[in-house]
Amino acid sequence: MAAIESVKADLYRVPLASALTDSTHGQMVDFELITVRVRDSDGAEGLGYTYTVHAGGAAVHAMVQRYFAELLRGREADEIEHRWQDMWWALHYAGRGGHVTSAISAVDIALWDLRGRRAELPLWRIFGGYDPQVPVYAGGIDLELPLPDLLAQADSFQEHGFRAIKMKVGRPDLREDVERVAAMREHLGATFPLMADANMKWTADQAVRAARALSESDLFWLEEPTVPEDFAGHARVRHEGGVPVASGENLHTLEEFQRAMSASAVSFPEPDVSNCGGYTVFRKICALAEAHHLPVTSHGVHDLTVHALAAAPNRTYMEAHGFGLDAYLARPLHVENGFARAPELPGHGVDLDFDRLESLRP
Amino acid sequence: MAAIESVKADLYRVPLASALTDSTHGQMVDFELITVRVRDSDGAEGLGYTYTVHAGGAAVHAMVQRYFAELLRGREADEIEHRWQDMWWALHYAGRGGHVTSAISAVDIALWDLRGRRAELPLWRIFGGYDPQVPVYAGGIDLELPLPDLLAQADSFQEHGFRAIKMKVGRPDLREDVERVAAMREHLGATFPLMADANMKWTADQAVRAARALSESDLFWLEEPTVPEDFAGHARVRHEGGVPVASGENLHTLEEFQRAMSASAVSFPEPDVSNCGGYTVFRKICALAEAHHLPVTSHGVHDLTVHALAAAPNRTYMEAHGFGLDAYLARPLHVENGFARAPELPGHGVDLDFDRLESLRP
Ligand SMILES: [Mg+2]
Ligand SMILES: [Mg+2]
Repeated sequence: MAAIESVKADLYRVPLASALTDSTHGQMVDFELITVRVRDSDGAEGLGYTYTVHAGGAAVHAMVQRYFAELLRGREADEIEHRWQDMWWALHYAGRGGHVTSAISAVDIALWDLRGRRAELPLWRIFGGYDPQVPVYAGGIDLELPLPDLLAQADSFQEHGFRAIKMKVGRPDLREDVERVAAMREHLGATFPLMADANMKWTADQAVRAARALSESDLFWLEEPTVPEDFAGHARVRHEGGVPVASGENLHTLEEFQRAMSASAVSFPEPDVSNCGGYTVFRKICALAEAHHLPVTSHGVHDLTVHALAAAPNRTYMEAHGFGLDAYLARPLHVENGFARAPELPGHGVDLDFDRLESLRP
Repeated sequence: MAAIESVKADLYRVPLASALTDSTHGQMVDFELITVRVRDSDGAEGLGYTYTVHAGGAAVHAMVQRYFAELLRGREADEIEHRWQDMWWALHYAGRGGHVTSAISAVDIALWDLRGRRAELPLWRIFGGYDPQVPVYAGGIDLELPLPDLLAQADSFQEHGFRAIKMKVGRPDLREDVERVAAMREHLGATFPLMADANMKWTADQAVRAARALSESDLFWLEEPTVPEDFAGHARVRHEGGVPVASGENLHTLEEFQRAMSASAVSFPEPDVSNCGGYTVFRKICALAEAHHLPVTSHGVHDLTVHALAAAPNRTYMEAHGFGLDAYLARPLHVENGFARAPELPGHGVDLDFDRLESLRP
């Protein structure tokens, strides 16, 4: 039992090693990283973080630094569900999802990390442990990559231990998508798990047409075929398009995941622990998926996510996301023969190099 | 045709004349006001604003100042729908509703004001004009007000021209709500429009029970009986509780209003122009309500809202909200015999006294 003594948020703009591209976000050369450090009255510290694509990070930072820090000071660090409710209701007016969920996520992750560090237990064990070996796929962000480079990237992914790969679709001419996916299928072989991500590019009708046009390439899933809230459209892609659908990186509440599953909109729920409400909500989404007889995958921040999926009996492939923090981590995620292993370090075991980050303040 | 030259956002904490109380937000002694001033290349200026309950305003301010200002600079001020999309997609990741909609609202309102000022026309005429006389009700925020004061407040509202009143419910013991509402009904007479607002206090079962317990007082509507996203619960209150339901101040997208109406969750859609996406979305919600054969009411910022409702054939009572800005306005809303009149000034006609606001920076 220890009270929260301080909550400190920081904002950075982290450059990517090379520009990434998808159908909606265009070219991405960097991302915003918002870190949160929670210290308790015994001097123990927990770390959390979230990120944005292009913009919005300063708002997330303001939520934590200007409101949550004061709200949380002096309150019990172990009552994480209670602190979660405190934050949700403090910014409920005008909030109720959106950026406030990212802000809550970062604090929630820090509180869980603190819990694990104090218990000297890795989070995947605290979460109830299923299997520390988590299957993983390489999430390519590569819509504009010329085909030879796309195939070379696939080779590189395999050399780095990946045994499943996702590529982007949603080019202006559907025939280009069909050609590129077919070339990848040919290159990878008939049974290699290959996913494709449209990043909300299409209308429901376009997405059904695309799903059918891509059917010969036997996709493991088609991701975000339409805008995320179009659950009826997603369901059509599954049922009329004949392809499993992954979605969730743009859903920000437990209730949205519940509706998506109830509406038959999603085959592979894909929460992002850094924008769905932290470990607290991610684990509830895993339970919800299990109740709907669905596997659960993930989006983003794989170094954190691995603990949640290592504790979920219905876990399927975890995404190794292109927004990696490897350059700022003592121990980046290691992938071997298609699996990542949840660390045995206390908490989530991620240590960010804040000295190196210092130069990345916007 | 003129390009946007600058977008300036400011944050203030505005004290209330007396503390207000409701079942969820507790005691409110002030609110955060976020103003936005958009200037075009001809030097013309438009004003928008939004607000928060308790907290979150610094995040809204950061969204406008850190991201939208740069995004909008140099773009055409008249293509408001286009600018709306620009803002929505710039912060879509981690956003898709919540605080970003408040930020967009403030800019959207400023762009419409600019449009009206340049045309030298009041917005209600630009919006297609239905009737400048808009029926209005006094939104009491008075859960903790002792009964004699509650009745005295009702008298004062009537002296100030109101012919419809809303009171808060959701006290710990339902019998207290029943007594207070019955006393107000007795005080106001059998045909006086009396609304009650539970501010999300109840579960669906509790709300149905409350609706039935309050049935003798013949409420004009019961507002936000459950959490806003519980559309099935809202529908039960209408159908099993036998009372019309108002809801919308905590819905932040056109799509949410569409689902609420389709789910039979709402009798009186109640968007807040400062958190639903500005005039652009408020007017679409009016159209959506009309298509569902529903009247449309409003929440908050009545000085701005009056233009939108003055252009809606299906408008019903506009809320005169307790978070008034009268002390900072040259011409506060004037209510006479139950109606407010949309002004004939260019734009929305609201001029904030920024000199007086200066001392309210947090
Ligand atoms: Mg994706
Ligand atoms: Mg209300």
